[in-house]
Amino acid sequence: MSLPRILAIHAHPDDVEIQCAGTLGRLKQLGCEVVVATMTAGDCGSAVLGPDEIAAVRRREAQAAADLLGAKYYCLEFKDLQISHDNESRRRVTELMRKARPDIVLTAPPVDYMSDHEVTSLLVRDAAFNASCPNYKTQQWDPAPATSKIPALYYVDPIEGIDWYGQPIAPEFIVDISETFDLKLKSLACHSSQREWLRQQHGLDEYLDGCRRWSALRGAEIGVAYGEAFRQHRGHPYPHDNVLLKVLNAAGR
Amino acid sequence: MSLPRILAIHAHPDDVEIQCAGTLGRLKQLGCEVVVATMTAGDCGSAVLGPDEIAAVRRREAQAAADLLGAKYYCLEFKDLQISHDNESRRRVTELMRKARPDIVLTAPPVDYMSDHEVTSLLVRDAAFNASCPNYKTQQWDPAPATSKIPALYYVDPIEGIDWYGQPIAPEFIVDISETFDLKLKSLACHSSQREWLRQQHGLDEYLDGCRRWSALRGAEIGVAYGEAFRQHRGHPYPHDNVLLKVLNAAGR
Amino acid sequence: MSLPRILAIHAHPDDVEIQCAGTLGRLKQLGCEVVVATMTAGDCGSAVLGPDEIAAVRRREAQAAADLLGAKYYCLEFKDLQISHDNESRRRVTELMRKARPDIVLTAPPVDYMSDHEVTSLLVRDAAFNASCPNYKTQQWDPAPATSKIPALYYVDPIEGIDWYGQPIAPEFIVDISETFDLKLKSLACHSSQREWLRQQHGLDEYLDGCRRWSALRGAEIGVAYGEAFRQHRGHPYPHDNVLLKVLNAAGR
Amino acid sequence: MSLPRILAIHAHPDDVEIQCAGTLGRLKQLGCEVVVATMTAGDCGSAVLGPDEIAAVRRREAQAAADLLGAKYYCLEFKDLQISHDNESRRRVTELMRKARPDIVLTAPPVDYMSDHEVTSLLVRDAAFNASCPNYKTQQWDPAPATSKIPALYYVDPIEGIDWYGQPIAPEFIVDISETFDLKLKSLACHSSQREWLRQQHGLDEYLDGCRRWSALRGAEIGVAYGEAFRQHRGHPYPHDNVLLKVLNAAGR
Amino acid sequence: MSLPRILAIHAHPDDVEIQCAGTLGRLKQLGCEVVVATMTAGDCGSAVLGPDEIAAVRRREAQAAADLLGAKYYCLEFKDLQISHDNESRRRVTELMRKARPDIVLTAPPVDYMSDHEVTSLLVRDAAFNASCPNYKTQQWDPAPATSKIPALYYVDPIEGIDWYGQPIAPEFIVDISETFDLKLKSLACHSSQREWLRQQHGLDEYLDGCRRWSALRGAEIGVAYGEAFRQHRGHPYPHDNVLLKVLNAAGR
Amino acid sequence: MSLPRILAIHAHPDDVEIQCAGTLGRLKQLGCEVVVATMTAGDCGSAVLGPDEIAAVRRREAQAAADLLGAKYYCLEFKDLQISHDNESRRRVTELMRKARPDIVLTAPPVDYMSDHEVTSLLVRDAAFNASCPNYKTQQWDPAPATSKIPALYYVDPIEGIDWYGQPIAPEFIVDISETFDLKLKSLACHSSQREWLRQQHGLDEYLDGCRRWSALRGAEIGVAYGEAFRQHRGHPYPHDNVLLKVLNAAGR
Repeated sequence: MSLPRILAIHAHPDDVEIQCAGTLGRLKQLGCEVVVATMTAGDCGSAVLGPDEIAAVRRREAQAAADLLGAKYYCLEFKDLQISHDNESRRRVTELMRKARPDIVLTAPPVDYMSDHEVTSLLVRDAAFNASCPNYKTQQWDPAPATSKIPALYYVDPIEGIDWYGQPIAPEFIVDISETFDLKLKSLACHSSQREWLRQQHGLDEYLDGCRRWSALRGAEIGVAYGEAFRQHRGHPYPHDNVLLKVLNAAGR
Repeated sequence: MSLPRILAIHAHPDDVEIQCAGTLGRLKQLGCEVVVATMTAGDCGSAVLGPDEIAAVRRREAQAAADLLGAKYYCLEFKDLQISHDNESRRRVTELMRKARPDIVLTAPPVDYMSDHEVTSLLVRDAAFNASCPNYKTQQWDPAPATSKIPALYYVDPIEGIDWYGQPIAPEFIVDISETFDLKLKSLACHSSQREWLRQQHGLDEYLDGCRRWSALRGAEIGVAYGEAFRQHRGHPYPHDNVLLKVLNAAGR
Repeated sequence: MSLPRILAIHAHPDDVEIQCAGTLGRLKQLGCEVVVATMTAGDCGSAVLGPDEIAAVRRREAQAAADLLGAKYYCLEFKDLQISHDNESRRRVTELMRKARPDIVLTAPPVDYMSDHEVTSLLVRDAAFNASCPNYKTQQWDPAPATSKIPALYYVDPIEGIDWYGQPIAPEFIVDISETFDLKLKSLACHSSQREWLRQQHGLDEYLDGCRRWSALRGAEIGVAYGEAFRQHRGHPYPHDNVLLKVLNAAGR
Repeated sequence: MSLPRILAIHAHPDDVEIQCAGTLGRLKQLGCEVVVATMTAGDCGSAVLGPDEIAAVRRREAQAAADLLGAKYYCLEFKDLQISHDNESRRRVTELMRKARPDIVLTAPPVDYMSDHEVTSLLVRDAAFNASCPNYKTQQWDPAPATSKIPALYYVDPIEGIDWYGQPIAPEFIVDISETFDLKLKSLACHSSQREWLRQQHGLDEYLDGCRRWSALRGAEIGVAYGEAFRQHRGHPYPHDNVLLKVLNAAGR
Repeated sequence: MSLPRILAIHAHPDDVEIQCAGTLGRLKQLGCEVVVATMTAGDCGSAVLGPDEIAAVRRREAQAAADLLGAKYYCLEFKDLQISHDNESRRRVTELMRKARPDIVLTAPPVDYMSDHEVTSLLVRDAAFNASCPNYKTQQWDPAPATSKIPALYYVDPIEGIDWYGQPIAPEFIVDISETFDLKLKSLACHSSQREWLRQQHGLDEYLDGCRRWSALRGAEIGVAYGEAFRQHRGHPYPHDNVLLKVLNAAGR
Repeated sequence: MSLPRILAIHAHPDDVEIQCAGTLGRLKQLGCEVVVATMTAGDCGSAVLGPDEIAAVRRREAQAAADLLGAKYYCLEFKDLQISHDNESRRRVTELMRKARPDIVLTAPPVDYMSDHEVTSLLVRDAAFNASCPNYKTQQWDPAPATSKIPALYYVDPIEGIDWYGQPIAPEFIVDISETFDLKLKSLACHSSQREWLRQQHGLDEYLDGCRRWSALRGAEIGVAYGEAFRQHRGHPYPHDNVLLKVLNAAGR
């Protein structure tokens, strides 16, 4: 099996790192090309700086985190708290899909605590399909060509692994990230502005500790130090085969 | 514990009264400030009057019901059957959240028989979060300042307590409204135009009787005369603590 | 019971035939008037022809299939992969509902592998309700009058009968289509362009065979040769009575 | 020369009557089919009644005036003070053009005291051209076919015959309406609500007198009792020949 | 004659000061209430600072200039180079008109070198009329009531007093601002960021000198040291009487 | 003087060739880089082919004509008869301006017989200015950087050199194209589909002859065989110097 190309896309800077940087680290070790994308630049992530200013800070932080992971970084320049399930948004995410041409996509789960995450999930699911249809146009200046196939699509955990009512959402499978957990934590630490903001906004003062606890919990479910959980989208024409696990397991041998 | 400020917001005039007027009555008795809001003025609620005319009637009815409950009333002036999950709508509901500054929000459930209810639920969930982000702008003339925290968010019952397929949606907890049931019924009776319209449109001729039956059913589940059911939204940064029950129970002692 | 009027509406040309042509055939045999509608003309359904060209081909194929079923055919001229849950879309589907005036509606299920299907489902549910409200305007040139009642609403199977994660979605009931299965297959065979496209795009080379297998599986669940599965929408004001089964059973006697 | 079909379209109910009812009367006498259309139903034309109510009144008044003139009446249901030069508006006016299929169009002048008039003028000019292009689609349910030619297009006077700065806009030619002036005045008198509104709103208390004075002024310019002034749009592919005058003059002989 | 209320509104911070601060100074001396408004906060007015940052600077500068003129200042928060002639924009400007309730409005001319100026002119003309129609709604949270009359409307000079082709646009009348010219220059000097930006962007390094030269030129046309030129909008229902000159002349006696 | 970069942009394929191909030919002979752009692909330019099909034909024709002129060709993919003066359109034309980085722009005149031409003129004027503002964003995937200056802007003739009323619009100056007239005619002849369409649609059967007559008329005004007419936009910050004539005259020596 040739190495798959990977796209990890989530709503805001730091979401990718929180949910799947350990897995990305493992895939990178295997030699996979990795693209990290965020829908927004995180323009609402500050109580002190204005939208442009905090966005500039966070684009730099996201770039630094991607550099650490050996990934190419894109920001799609949506606005925080304004992601909508409309055609302009579909076209933009589809253009990313055609530019990145991934074999495997990791993205936000369809149910989470806020619309930015949930709508991102829908848009990425749509785009993974739409990108392969040559008659679907993205209205960009130099549009990338249609992809040749639909990628395998995976949803990461919602925050805290719960649904709207606080009930756990069971993962389908868990990836052992014990080896790359340090890298994950370092990549997360790149988002220093967000750590500050969350402390002020939500009274959560333990950006890295929370990440460690959650990763340890998911790891414990499969008897390893640290883990990250996923569910695969297996709608009709999407690959039903779990290529992500196959790649990781093949490497383990 | 100081008394929480309450916002009850649902799609149409009478929805708040049907689903949670008894609970609002109890909170008001405790001394809480209560705000009632409807997304629309109910402009499609008539087979006889035109949109403007029936809306004028129903704004008055909603105001009368709110007066009875000792609540301030706002109509957000969306249009019946036209509530959409877009950014203009998010901004308007967020502005309400910033004006009302509630500690507790009661709103429509995410799954119900029609889009007006479901989209209201999504918009209110979004707004409860967005209101606390200073960089999120509502584009109103004299916008209220960002809120200082995310309120506790509760979903009322869907109509008939069922999902799309007629299956029951189990409530998380039920509030005993036996003492305030009469008030609830009186507040509902303020919506006399709607009683007429439902009779003609859906062949349901028992506006008040239906409300009584449903409240009695919910009450029976906890062994009291009348009850109203709720589920709390416990997504990541929303309060996980059931402050609504705490306030009501503290009062009971 | 007088014979009900039937509307079957799904996203793309061939979706109706795949999911419910056998049931439509039985209803037609009973003497029901049947209307088939597709949201789009299938403009993305080709890797070779441009949008206009393939749409022209597929409108003709859909018309041929409807002719075979003895149904009137409408195309609502949405665009493939661009169906959105907004008010312009609601109005257009509501206008169809008012023109077709069905007693029974068969449509896409709320959870399926792609947005075109899921949003169609939401729009049809909205339209079935909205059509009956005289104050709801569709902004068409010669708008049809409001309907006199909300029709009974049924969801067909998602493709492969699965949810996003590949888990089966249990049907509520299954219709025996053994007698009309040949007609169903013939009507599906009218969509020859789609058969080609699916072969190239998704590597699925067995348009008719897949349909036969799926219909046989659903049939086996009730011990007949071929079947089609449905779930009824039983939200508050929608008919809760299973009129579809009643009509079919009455005929069976 | 066979008799031309006539379309007179202006922004609000009463604009057509004020500016060209005398000419329409003459054309009708000759046997021409006449269509009168208003962009809006005049929903802002009252300080007392709400939008729906005054619109209902004014649709009836416009219909009565059209009946008097022997004309078919259409209201395009734009909203007062909200006419915009966008594609949805172009499509709607184009659909009218294709339904009415006029040989001669009389419409608002490109410069007048308010946007509703000026934008109507632009939209009608656009529509007269667009209607003849088969590939231009109006997105209506049962769209009329493309027209076979571009009609001759005429602009009526701006109100008071002046530009924004109060300077006279010279007409190109004036039609003698002495014979039909009584009819014009009667048709104008049908708009009784507007007479009331203008009196209250603008302090202009002489609806019919003002019309008489203006018509007399225009008449005096060509030495007759009453006249109406026009300018012909002679952009590239529009008929350059003054067919309106030809028809009227031929009749005079 | 009681003192009129004045509204001066132009596209960007500094446009009002350049074109009519001398006249505003004279009106203020007479005791008139003056409101200054800008459509945008000038977010594109820098080659160094980002949109939010330069907008914050320029809001402060505009406020300082208004303070100097004794005027209340509003920013309508449109975006530079994005002002459009659509209904959302009309509503926002109409709301200003209803809040400021002016007797006299000074605004941008209909022909100038760029769309922001020209579209502002159209929107203000529309709003002056629309504000007086009670049925016209602005969709703001606490909308101001409709005005009781249409204000007298004046257009200031285009930049350089020329049309698109460099031809002079003759003013209708010129106001002697010799006494208040120093104030005008000081108010203009408040916009220090803009002075910098223009120097870099357009190679015009003489913000105040240019203003002095232009004011002197306009003054010379009526034989005074400094002047500002205007044209009055005299469309149908707008005041035709030159109340601005009357007020100033009455004061001169 | 170093050689200027040229951008000629008009609404539809063939408009550039009709109005300024002779001038482009002369500029190309001097060694200037030339970019030709059309707003649309001409999708309404056929009574026989559908939109996609005729657009494909006309893109090829426009490319062939540009090849003949030694120019790079862009199509901005607006739709025929749908060009609007809105922000999405402004952004797209601004992106072209930033990609082409012209010193001289030739475009449609502000007054012509149809909106596509007039709105193109406005959008290009806007874009020439907007492109130089770094804070103005075009929302493209890989946006070109802001330009360093505003280009000199020229309007070509309206069709037939007339305004809406058939009155001549006097040119500011005329370029002698006698030497390059053959090239102009050949480039126009590339648009063979349009020649056919105009013959059917407007009864104008003399595509090349009309062009020859018009060029000869303009030439006669300055005493040469063939000419093309222009007016320069001299709004405030646009170059007031006639660099186009300077380049051509310098070359003549």
